[in-house]
Amino acid sequence: MRVGMIGVGRMGAGMAANLLQAGHELCVYNRSPEKAAALIAQGARAAASIADACGGDAVLSMLANDEAVESVVFADGGIAASLPAGALHISSSTISVALVERLTAAHRDVGQRFVAAPVFGRPHLAAAGQLFVIAAGEPAAIEAATPVLDAIGQKTFVVGETPQIANLIKISGNFLIASVMESLGEAMALVGKAGIDRRQYLEILTSTLFNAPVYSTYGGLVADGNFEPAGFAAPLGYKDIRLALAAADELRVPMPLASLLRDRFLTLLAQGGDHLDWSAIGGLAAKDAGVPYR
Amino acid sequence: MRVGMIGVGRMGAGMAANLLQAGHELCVYNRSPEKAAALIAQGARAAASIADACGGDAVLSMLANDEAVESVVFADGGIAASLPAGALHISSSTISVALVERLTAAHRDVGQRFVAAPVFGRPHLAAAGQLFVIAAGEPAAIEAATPVLDAIGQKTFVVGETPQIANLIKISGNFLIASVMESLGEAMALVGKAGIDRRQYLEILTSTLFNAPVYSTYGGLVADGNFEPAGFAAPLGYKDIRLALAAADELRVPMPLASLLRDRFLTLLAQGGDHLDWSAIGGLAAKDAGVPYR
Amino acid sequence: MRVGMIGVGRMGAGMAANLLQAGHELCVYNRSPEKAAALIAQGARAAASIADACGGDAVLSMLANDEAVESVVFADGGIAASLPAGALHISSSTISVALVERLTAAHRDVGQRFVAAPVFGRPHLAAAGQLFVIAAGEPAAIEAATPVLDAIGQKTFVVGETPQIANLIKISGNFLIASVMESLGEAMALVGKAGIDRRQYLEILTSTLFNAPVYSTYGGLVADGNFEPAGFAAPLGYKDIRLALAAADELRVPMPLASLLRDRFLTLLAQGGDHLDWSAIGGLAAKDAGVPYR
Amino acid sequence: MRVGMIGVGRMGAGMAANLLQAGHELCVYNRSPEKAAALIAQGARAAASIADACGGDAVLSMLANDEAVESVVFADGGIAASLPAGALHISSSTISVALVERLTAAHRDVGQRFVAAPVFGRPHLAAAGQLFVIAAGEPAAIEAATPVLDAIGQKTFVVGETPQIANLIKISGNFLIASVMESLGEAMALVGKAGIDRRQYLEILTSTLFNAPVYSTYGGLVADGNFEPAGFAAPLGYKDIRLALAAADELRVPMPLASLLRDRFLTLLAQGGDHLDWSAIGGLAAKDAGVPYR
Repeated sequence: MRVGMIGVGRMGAGMAANLLQAGHELCVYNRSPEKAAALIAQGARAAASIADACGGDAVLSMLANDEAVESVVFADGGIAASLPAGALHISSSTISVALVERLTAAHRDVGQRFVAAPVFGRPHLAAAGQLFVIAAGEPAAIEAATPVLDAIGQKTFVVGETPQIANLIKISGNFLIASVMESLGEAMALVGKAGIDRRQYLEILTSTLFNAPVYSTYGGLVADGNFEPAGFAAPLGYKDIRLALAAADELRVPMPLASLLRDRFLTLLAQGGDHLDWSAIGGLAAKDAGVPYR
Repeated sequence: MRVGMIGVGRMGAGMAANLLQAGHELCVYNRSPEKAAALIAQGARAAASIADACGGDAVLSMLANDEAVESVVFADGGIAASLPAGALHISSSTISVALVERLTAAHRDVGQRFVAAPVFGRPHLAAAGQLFVIAAGEPAAIEAATPVLDAIGQKTFVVGETPQIANLIKISGNFLIASVMESLGEAMALVGKAGIDRRQYLEILTSTLFNAPVYSTYGGLVADGNFEPAGFAAPLGYKDIRLALAAADELRVPMPLASLLRDRFLTLLAQGGDHLDWSAIGGLAAKDAGVPYR
Repeated sequence: MRVGMIGVGRMGAGMAANLLQAGHELCVYNRSPEKAAALIAQGARAAASIADACGGDAVLSMLANDEAVESVVFADGGIAASLPAGALHISSSTISVALVERLTAAHRDVGQRFVAAPVFGRPHLAAAGQLFVIAAGEPAAIEAATPVLDAIGQKTFVVGETPQIANLIKISGNFLIASVMESLGEAMALVGKAGIDRRQYLEILTSTLFNAPVYSTYGGLVADGNFEPAGFAAPLGYKDIRLALAAADELRVPMPLASLLRDRFLTLLAQGGDHLDWSAIGGLAAKDAGVPYR
Repeated sequence: MRVGMIGVGRMGAGMAANLLQAGHELCVYNRSPEKAAALIAQGARAAASIADACGGDAVLSMLANDEAVESVVFADGGIAASLPAGALHISSSTISVALVERLTAAHRDVGQRFVAAPVFGRPHLAAAGQLFVIAAGEPAAIEAATPVLDAIGQKTFVVGETPQIANLIKISGNFLIASVMESLGEAMALVGKAGIDRRQYLEILTSTLFNAPVYSTYGGLVADGNFEPAGFAAPLGYKDIRLALAAADELRVPMPLASLLRDRFLTLLAQGGDHLDWSAIGGLAAKDAGVPYR
C-alpha cells in the first residue's frame, strides 16, 4: 500500500520503520523534519507537506495530543482537506473520545474512511512491530486498514464499528497501568520503609499472582526509582488520566482512583517532573513517607 | 513429621489434606469439630484440645484474624503454654504485624521456635497444594518448617529472619490485589456505561499487558458481577486493608489508595455485603455511576 | 446610569430589581423573554436583542456558565460587537478563569471597559441587594462600575486590576462551601448513625466554633435532607468544582478535596440528582453508610 | 466542692486554675509534678498519688490519649480503685468511643458516677474559663458535675445520658475543624499560586460567609504558615482523626474526607512535623504544588 505517515516521534518512528519493513510505499511527514531522516535513509519519501503525505491509499497519524491531531486534520491543507474520497485515515494517537467523534463525522462528511487504532506498548515494542492494536471503525474501513495494522502490531483487537470505542479502551487501559504504578508505589513505600528490599519484593510479586508485563516493567522502574530517561513522559501520562476523567465526566462515572492519579501527576509536574517517566508517580508515596528514593 | 493443625476452615482444610497426602502424621483441632470430620476420615487424628494438638514436632495455625490467633496462642492451654521447648509454631494466618512481633517474643521467651508463613492463593489452590508461601524466621526454624511448607505450597519464598516481614509482605500483597479490583471496577464502570462488553474488554486486557492470574481471576468476577458465594469474604478483605493501614500507621507511610479501599469495603459492609466475595468492591463504581450490575 | 441587564434567572432577576430600585434606567434582555415580565412591570424596558441592551453606559451579565457567556459576548450582535467604545461590561457570572482572560483581551481590543464582579449569596440575598461582590478590573473601570455594584451588594471587595483574580476567588469560595457540605455530610452520617439528633448536633456546632452562615444555612439543609427545591442546583455546583479543578490544572495545584467533591457531584448526577440543591452531596455519606435520609 | 484534678498540661492547667477561681477545694495530680507548681502557688494541694486526688467529691481528668486515661483509671491505685462509691469522675480527655464505653461500665460496676465532658477550645480559652463543654451521663451525675463544668466553660451542652455520645460529638467536631484546615490549605495554595495575597483572601472569607472563629483562627495560621509553637500539636490532631475513623469503623460509616485528613497528618508526621501545630496540614497542599511557604 501507499501509506502516508504523520508524526514520527518516539512511537511513530518505530511504527513507520515496520511499515517500510512490511513492503509498504511510505511517505513521511513530521513537523520537525530531522526526525524523519533515518526513515528517509531506509527508503521512505519525505513529504513536503501534510497534503503531500495524503496522496496514497491511507494516512496513519501518531501524534502527542488532541491539539496536534486537530491541527493536522483540520488546518488548511490538513488531512480532511487533502485526503481523496475513499482513502483512509488511521488515527493511532491517544486522544479524547470527543475528538474521535468529531474526526468520525468530519471524515464521513467528505467521503473519507476512518479507523481509530490506538496502540498499547512502549517505544521498544513499536520498534519491534510488537504493539497491541485496538481498532474500531466500519468493517470495510477496518479491512482496508489491516495491512497497516498487521505491520505495526503483534495483534489487532477489533472492538466495534464506532471509532471512539477504541480510544475509550486505550484511555482506560492507561488508567489501569497508572493504577498499577500507584499501588506498587504505595506498597513499596510501606515494605521499603520496613527494610524489605524492593527488588526482592517485586520478584515475589511477579513470580506469583502478578506475573504480567505491566508489573515487571513498571515495578522495576518504581523499585529502582529509575525514572529517567522517560519512555513515556509524565505530561503524557497526566494527559491520559485527564482524558479518562473527561470521558468519565461525559458518561457520568465517578472514578476516585482516577482522581487520585490526577492529583499524583499534578504533584509530580508541579514539583518539576516534566522530564520524568510517568512511572515517577510511583515514587511519590515514598516521598510523602519521608523516605524519598534519592 | 508429627504436625498439629489448628484451624481447618476453607483454607486450612485444604492445607491439612496436603499435609496428610505428603505423609505427615496429622492431628487436627478446630473450634467447630464437625469441620475436621473429612480430615479424620482421611486419616487425621482429632485433637481433644489445643494442647492435645501441640504434642508433635510442629503446630500449624491457619485462623481468621488477630483475635482468633491471640486466643489460640495465649489462652490457658493455648499453644504458648502447651508446645514443648524446641518445637515449632508455623503461623499462616494473615494477621497484624504487631501481633506477629508479640508471637515472636512470646515463643522465644519459652524456647519454642516460630515461623511466620502466610500464603497467597484462594481455597482451590490450598486444596491443590499450590499456594505460594512467604516465610520468615530464624534459619533453623525455617529449615525445620520446610517439610510442612513444601506440602502446602508450590513454592516458598524465604524473606528474612524477622517473622513480621513475611506478614507485611502478605498484607501488602492483599492490598495490591484489592487495588486491582478497584481499578478494574472503575474501568469497567466507564467502558460498560459506554456500551462495551465487559467480558470482551477483560479479554483484551488479559491478552496484552495484564495477562496475570490476578486480572483474569478477579477481573472475571468483577466483569460478571459474580460475587456469591464468597471465595474470600468481604469482611476478611476489609480486615486485611485495615492491617495494611495499621502497619502504615506504625511506619508512618501515607497510602491514599489503601484509604480509598478502606472506604470501599466499609461502604460494601454498611450496605449489607458481609456475605459477598471481597471482589464485590469492584461493583461499587458501577453502582455510584447509576448502572449497578443487578 | 443606563444599564443593560443580560440574564434574569434566579439570581439576575433579584440583581435587576435592585438596579431599578436604585434609580438606574434599566433595559433587560433574557433568552426566554417571559422571565423579564416582572421587571418590565416594575419599569424596565424590554430589549429586543442583546445589541439593544448594549446601548447604555454599562451592561451587566449574569449567566449560567461559560457557554452562555461566550454566546452572549462573542456571537454576531453580541456584547463585544455592540457595546460602544468606552462603555462597560460587568460580568457577574461564575465562569472559568480562562474565559475571563479571553473576555478581558476581547474588550480591551475594541476599547471597551471590563470588570469581573462575581458574587457570593443565594437568590434571597440577590433579591435583598445583600450580595457580596468580588470585583477586579482597571481602576477607572471599577470606578465606573461602582453605582451598579453598590446597588446589587451589601459590600464590594476590590481585589485587583486583573479581572480573572475575582473569578478565581469566587470559584475557590464555592469550593470552600462545598467542602463544608461534605464535612458536615460525613460528620452527620457518623453521629446520626450513632443515634444523635442531627439538628441538635448542628445547634451545638453553630453555637460554638462554627457560628457562620455557611454552617447554619447548609448545615440545616444537610441535617434535614432538605434538598428540594434547589436554591442552587447540583449541576451548577458540579460546574463550579470543575472550574476550580480547571484552574488547578492550569496553575498545577493538586487539590484532593476538590477531587473528592467532583466525584461526589458526579455520583449525585449519575444517580438522577440534577434537580436537587447542590447541598445534596451532603447526603451521600449517609447513603454510603446504609442510612439514607429518605 | 472538693475536686481532684488529674492532668495539668496545657489544657488542664487552665481548667484547674478556673476551678480554684470558682472557689473549689482543689487537689492536683500530674505525672510530672513540676507542672502543678503554679497551681500549688495559687492554693491547690499537691496530691501524692492518683489515689490521693480521689478523696473528694469528684475527680476531673484531662489527659492526652487513651493510653494515659487507661493507666490513670485502671492501674493499681487508679481512679476506679480509689474513688469512693457515689463520687464522680468527669472525663474531659478526647478519647475513643470504645474507651468511654469501658469507663462507663467500670465506674457503674463499683457504684461510682461518671460523666464524659470533653471540651472545645484551645489553651487560651481554657485559661479564660471560656471552653465549650459537651457533657453526657446520667442526669444525677450531670447535676453533680455542674459546678465543675460551670467553672471551666462558658457553656455546657448536655447531649444525652450515654457518655460516649459526648465523645463522639467532640471527635467529629475535631474532624470538622481539620476539614476546614484542609479546605483552606487547598484554596490558599490555589489563589496563592495565582499571586493573590493569602491574608487579603482570608479577610474576604471571614467578612462574608465564613465569619466564624474556626476560619479566622485556623485560617490565620494557614495563611501565615505560622505553625510553631503548637497550640495543639500535630500528633494529637492525628490521634483525633484516628479516633473518628475508629468510630466510623465501628459504626460502618465511610468517611473519605476523614481518610484524606489521616493521610495528610501521616505525611506531616512522616516528614518531621511532630512539633508543629495541627493546622500545619493546611500547608501541605502548597508544598505539593511546589510553592511551600518557607
